[in-house]
Amino acid sequence: MTASPPLNVAMIGYAFMGAAHSQAWRNAPRFFDLPLTPVQQVICGRNPEALAAAAAKLDWRHTETDWRAAITRDDVDLVDVCTPGDTHAEIAIAALEAGKHVLCEKPLANTVAEAEQMAAAAEAARANGVLAMVGFTYRRVPAVQLARQLIAEGRLGTIRQVRAQYLQDWIADASAPLSWRLDKTKAGSGALGDIGAHITDLIQFVTGQAITGVVGLTETFVKERPVATEFAGLAGTGGAELGPVTVDDASIWLARLAGGAIGTFEATRFAWGRKNGLRFEINGSAGSLAFDLEDLNVLEYFDAGEDARTAGYRRILVTEPEHPFVSAWWPAGHGLGYEHAFTHQVVDLVTAVSAGEQPEPSFADGLAVQRVLAAVEQSAQGGSTWLDIPAAG
Amino acid sequence: MTASPPLNVAMIGYAFMGAAHSQAWRNAPRFFDLPLTPVQQVICGRNPEALAAAAAKLDWRHTETDWRAAITRDDVDLVDVCTPGDTHAEIAIAALEAGKHVLCEKPLANTVAEAEQMAAAAEAARANGVLAMVGFTYRRVPAVQLARQLIAEGRLGTIRQVRAQYLQDWIADASAPLSWRLDKTKAGSGALGDIGAHITDLIQFVTGQAITGVVGLTETFVKERPVATEFAGLAGTGGAELGPVTVDDASIWLARLAGGAIGTFEATRFAWGRKNGLRFEINGSAGSLAFDLEDLNVLEYFDAGEDARTAGYRRILVTEPEHPFVSAWWPAGHGLGYEHAFTHQVVDLVTAVSAGEQPEPSFADGLAVQRVLAAVEQSAQGGSTWLDIPAAG
Amino acid sequence: MTASPPLNVAMIGYAFMGAAHSQAWRNAPRFFDLPLTPVQQVICGRNPEALAAAAAKLDWRHTETDWRAAITRDDVDLVDVCTPGDTHAEIAIAALEAGKHVLCEKPLANTVAEAEQMAAAAEAARANGVLAMVGFTYRRVPAVQLARQLIAEGRLGTIRQVRAQYLQDWIADASAPLSWRLDKTKAGSGALGDIGAHITDLIQFVTGQAITGVVGLTETFVKERPVATEFAGLAGTGGAELGPVTVDDASIWLARLAGGAIGTFEATRFAWGRKNGLRFEINGSAGSLAFDLEDLNVLEYFDAGEDARTAGYRRILVTEPEHPFVSAWWPAGHGLGYEHAFTHQVVDLVTAVSAGEQPEPSFADGLAVQRVLAAVEQSAQGGSTWLDIPAAG
Amino acid sequence: MTASPPLNVAMIGYAFMGAAHSQAWRNAPRFFDLPLTPVQQVICGRNPEALAAAAAKLDWRHTETDWRAAITRDDVDLVDVCTPGDTHAEIAIAALEAGKHVLCEKPLANTVAEAEQMAAAAEAARANGVLAMVGFTYRRVPAVQLARQLIAEGRLGTIRQVRAQYLQDWIADASAPLSWRLDKTKAGSGALGDIGAHITDLIQFVTGQAITGVVGLTETFVKERPVATEFAGLAGTGGAELGPVTVDDASIWLARLAGGAIGTFEATRFAWGRKNGLRFEINGSAGSLAFDLEDLNVLEYFDAGEDARTAGYRRILVTEPEHPFVSAWWPAGHGLGYEHAFTHQVVDLVTAVSAGEQPEPSFADGLAVQRVLAAVEQSAQGGSTWLDIPAAG
Repeated sequence: MTASPPLNVAMIGYAFMGAAHSQAWRNAPRFFDLPLTPVQQVICGRNPEALAAAAAKLDWRHTETDWRAAITRDDVDLVDVCTPGDTHAEIAIAALEAGKHVLCEKPLANTVAEAEQMAAAAEAARANGVLAMVGFTYRRVPAVQLARQLIAEGRLGTIRQVRAQYLQDWIADASAPLSWRLDKTKAGSGALGDIGAHITDLIQFVTGQAITGVVGLTETFVKERPVATEFAGLAGTGGAELGPVTVDDASIWLARLAGGAIGTFEATRFAWGRKNGLRFEINGSAGSLAFDLEDLNVLEYFDAGEDARTAGYRRILVTEPEHPFVSAWWPAGHGLGYEHAFTHQVVDLVTAVSAGEQPEPSFADGLAVQRVLAAVEQSAQGGSTWLDIPAAG
Repeated sequence: MTASPPLNVAMIGYAFMGAAHSQAWRNAPRFFDLPLTPVQQVICGRNPEALAAAAAKLDWRHTETDWRAAITRDDVDLVDVCTPGDTHAEIAIAALEAGKHVLCEKPLANTVAEAEQMAAAAEAARANGVLAMVGFTYRRVPAVQLARQLIAEGRLGTIRQVRAQYLQDWIADASAPLSWRLDKTKAGSGALGDIGAHITDLIQFVTGQAITGVVGLTETFVKERPVATEFAGLAGTGGAELGPVTVDDASIWLARLAGGAIGTFEATRFAWGRKNGLRFEINGSAGSLAFDLEDLNVLEYFDAGEDARTAGYRRILVTEPEHPFVSAWWPAGHGLGYEHAFTHQVVDLVTAVSAGEQPEPSFADGLAVQRVLAAVEQSAQGGSTWLDIPAAG
Repeated sequence: MTASPPLNVAMIGYAFMGAAHSQAWRNAPRFFDLPLTPVQQVICGRNPEALAAAAAKLDWRHTETDWRAAITRDDVDLVDVCTPGDTHAEIAIAALEAGKHVLCEKPLANTVAEAEQMAAAAEAARANGVLAMVGFTYRRVPAVQLARQLIAEGRLGTIRQVRAQYLQDWIADASAPLSWRLDKTKAGSGALGDIGAHITDLIQFVTGQAITGVVGLTETFVKERPVATEFAGLAGTGGAELGPVTVDDASIWLARLAGGAIGTFEATRFAWGRKNGLRFEINGSAGSLAFDLEDLNVLEYFDAGEDARTAGYRRILVTEPEHPFVSAWWPAGHGLGYEHAFTHQVVDLVTAVSAGEQPEPSFADGLAVQRVLAAVEQSAQGGSTWLDIPAAG
Repeated sequence: MTASPPLNVAMIGYAFMGAAHSQAWRNAPRFFDLPLTPVQQVICGRNPEALAAAAAKLDWRHTETDWRAAITRDDVDLVDVCTPGDTHAEIAIAALEAGKHVLCEKPLANTVAEAEQMAAAAEAARANGVLAMVGFTYRRVPAVQLARQLIAEGRLGTIRQVRAQYLQDWIADASAPLSWRLDKTKAGSGALGDIGAHITDLIQFVTGQAITGVVGLTETFVKERPVATEFAGLAGTGGAELGPVTVDDASIWLARLAGGAIGTFEATRFAWGRKNGLRFEINGSAGSLAFDLEDLNVLEYFDAGEDARTAGYRRILVTEPEHPFVSAWWPAGHGLGYEHAFTHQVVDLVTAVSAGEQPEPSFADGLAVQRVLAAVEQSAQGGSTWLDIPAAG
């Protein structure tokens, strides 16, 4: 095997998403034949000691403590932005302007204004052959890809209804401490931007239709929490001091889609017992689909054309060679996990970069999600009134 | 066994609901010790031949073709109203005024105005010891009763979120014919009043909280259908002539509850593959519950107080003697069906009548549901704007 | 409706099964058009007071304290034997000889010898137009009927493997008291004869193939229990005195079927958490089926002919009008319960009696089950050696 | 981070298992803090071209075409045997004698005699500080580990019953071609040794009890198949020529465990619709557990000590930091896949090697499994007679 040419990557940030992305860069060429071979060239963070430890642990060759230095290095082709949302715009735009391809974690930005600037920057860069992608990773869970394919093939007919939920419970306990994710200045919003972004993007992706209007309602159930004294991952411990929660704990909304479908959406961190319950159910004129990320190797499918006597939701184990991405991994029936979608994202990104084609989801897709989320928030703040969302472009 | 005194019943109407109610009147005294013994005294309908056949099949002693005659008979103590919703007010009010107890099928009425008159009539009658109940039967599915008990005992803590769906597919096929259920003048509304009424009542019952505001969106996906040439149950066949569907095919709404919880609701007849998918999921500060009528002997329960290592949604088979109504039936583990809730309804109604106490749900409860449904419809017609729902009283 | 001619029934015994059978006799003509109308004519038991109460509660016209008197009454056409298994042979044979049709609860008898006599008596009676049926009721759960139909239509191809389990937990608690069901002289055997009989009959029915050989293993985990001081249904309380358990708590066996399939079987009352877990899974050359009585309105079906990309076990809700027995009950999607299978049994029995045809399962079918159970017991007692089971006839 | 000392690995074979093991060696140090850092030093295979490609793809530094050369290299500390079962004994024993630690894929060998030699060699090597482990990887699925923990803590009380199934369907199609896995001289046995080995080991591991006797039945449903003309993974295509299948397609057996429990076991490749259905269900005197590899992040648990009103099987999502191995990966709720158990196996092996302690499962454990499988086969060949299995030692 002659290795394909290298694609040198600089990754900015190395927390949860940094670990997930590193795993993907490392493993993609071990299972897929890629036209470019990713090289984990530079990892970037502010704390030199923690950075060195991360570089060793996650297997990056070089370190930079200044992201501006990282993104302008000659030995970097692509910048992978894994920092909190309030820094995405500045870093991603600078990287694009420096001629580097960009993979930016979701949500694209914390505000529509920033997202618009990023989408414009991506469009400008593309004219120069520089490409940008936003990391809505769940698009590349094989069962989600299969859902998209079946709908695109017309197996559901006209889409009439969607119901989408992202149910978690990680701060349902009122004593869980404040983190940056509960601080509006850092996180932009709460459940809405963090996990509501996922279901927004997924429904638009799977149905192939834009959300054209929404009415929303948001709530913060626990208004003050202990200030964190220590943090690890998404968990931590808090002290006696209380601080305000400035984001939504849960957001719910109704929506219309471009093709006439109607939908209910819910993003919450307060659904005790649901750990990663990203679920959608889609009804068309010819059938239905259902998915739950807590059982991610499964897609449920109802074919309305079946005989009534034997019709029923099929539990498709999306672990066959015929299923998207699966044949590169293990024999039939051997399930994948959360992290594999990141590897699939690398595969598609590298393939697009090599071909000079726009990877999906684009920054414009990320902006579209941001507009929906902003409309939900604005609707909720305005007493739950309907807001149309103008078509992109 | 000395039989308890008789409670003579007149049933008006004998279609789907008439059969279900007859089954309940017949079987309740065979499994439960009742303070009064129901007697299937009079069945009433307009077509004499069909009526005679129904009387024989459903085991009623006498027939009447005029409901006014039926409700004034001396040998009738209670009138069971199983006719379409547009006739409920007139019959039920007349029966109450004639001094008969009344069981009225849901929805209480097709309009809030009628429901208000009925609730007023019920209140007036009660002063004379005449009692009225509305037939939200699903309250008496054992798993639903258990859900109510657990919440009332505080096992869920403060209720924060509800999500309720009633998913059916019986007219998802665009060639399914027009029936009176798709005619606004007869049915009042479509999915909203028919099955949306159930989830509205159930959530208010199970949480013990009123819905205080809503924003709604409704849709009619199939705007014209073949006029029915023949009908059997809910199905039928249509001819070449098309007629307009004047009710909603699907209704979705967001809501707030009196205790501060927020909720998403959906009623649809277009969810291919879901036959009787009445589901709710309720999250409180101390735990969660989930129910699905398609698996009606099960309640799922998550106790947030459990150790994280072994915590998980429990699949409670609500078929133990310790569960509501169950010990009167079969040994542990032997599941009940759809119709048993009607029998339980008779049990509680007869017991309340014998004790001279208000049976639940009352006409006031039925009115409360009607106000929510009307607000959803009004919100939807007004471009999906938020509407507060005044407290009853 | 002109009522069809009466079929006068005498029921011997009125415990759990008596209640279930009464419910079936009462309701069958209310939902199905029967060629004969069952009349609950005589109920028979030894304790006059309890008998009178049962007659009133279960709605029987007359009582007899001597079963011999009951079965010879001129106003009795059919004898329904609901007593413990050790009395079946004597009563059923006498009734047949008295020219009465017989429905006999399962197991047909406690010994093969008795079962052989019964089968011979049934054959002799049939020559005189007198018919006999054994009550393997679960055959008439609609999902089980559908399973039988699909296999008979060849949808599974050649049957290769079966796995059948009947899992309960009602005496898993070592302090549960002794009852007649744990006494070999009364019950014949334990889990084996009580619930092992069901899976044996069901597999033979659904596959259409006889079990031709077995090797078994049985165990009594709790060898002494408190003698019951009070009993209600299957539960009770015990005192300080201990008595021996003389039947099996669990029985497991391997088997071959006439068509070449192999199977695993398990009957246990010690599977904590499984209340009525009668499950089977059947694999053929063209597909598979799975059933679980704890979710009795569902049949799972895998069609091996489907495209690999969308193949999956279908969860068929067996609640459509196209499904066996369902259209007589409620509209699509409204699930049935445990007791409905008894009503279906009455329907088929009455229809067969009216037509003068052999109802199924016959006493010969009951004998076939008994031979399998006896072979399992004998194999287990002989150190788990293989035993061939001669073909019936 | 100062890297821990290296542990140089030579891997013999590079098919399915080679890929899985490479993935584990590569990723273990990226998520876990290991006392030794695995180095993918040498990969060994017979075909130089394919070997070079595999080395590049799977990231190994050096290649050897002669396994004898590979296992004696000075730069190798541990030999990872991923070849078919008929070569395990020779390679593993030679490696141990060369002073290399050994990880050997399951089954340990194709015959008991070979397994005994291997266990003896492992014991001899251990005296010299050289350690051996057999790769029953599923032990290290987090849900399986949790099951083991709960039983070891006494949460299930005395184990009474087990039921274990490994259901696949990859050769249920009679036209699937012959592969080495269907050739007794290569594979030793069919479903029995391949997947029956897994359930045998898992039940012994999870319960902590040896299987002490069995009676078995095996079957080959498709006795001739097309000779493969091309193979990829477990699939392939066959030509017109037919060859004999010389192994079992399905094996079923009954068993006793050392602690008195009884069990049913089934291994099959003919269960249409089950792709990787390794399931077990274990009942003790105090509760029950259930697992299914097709939903591998879940363990179901029934606690018999719970109040009957709210008792039920809990669906534990084994994705919390409190669960075995999970905290090293992703935040709570993010599921793992098939391959992660291999990484956990590396973690425990490296930790044991560093500490000079016996890793589990040992070759003696592998031999114990082999004795059970051999007894099942011998029992089946002898007409399904009971065989006791002598205790190890």
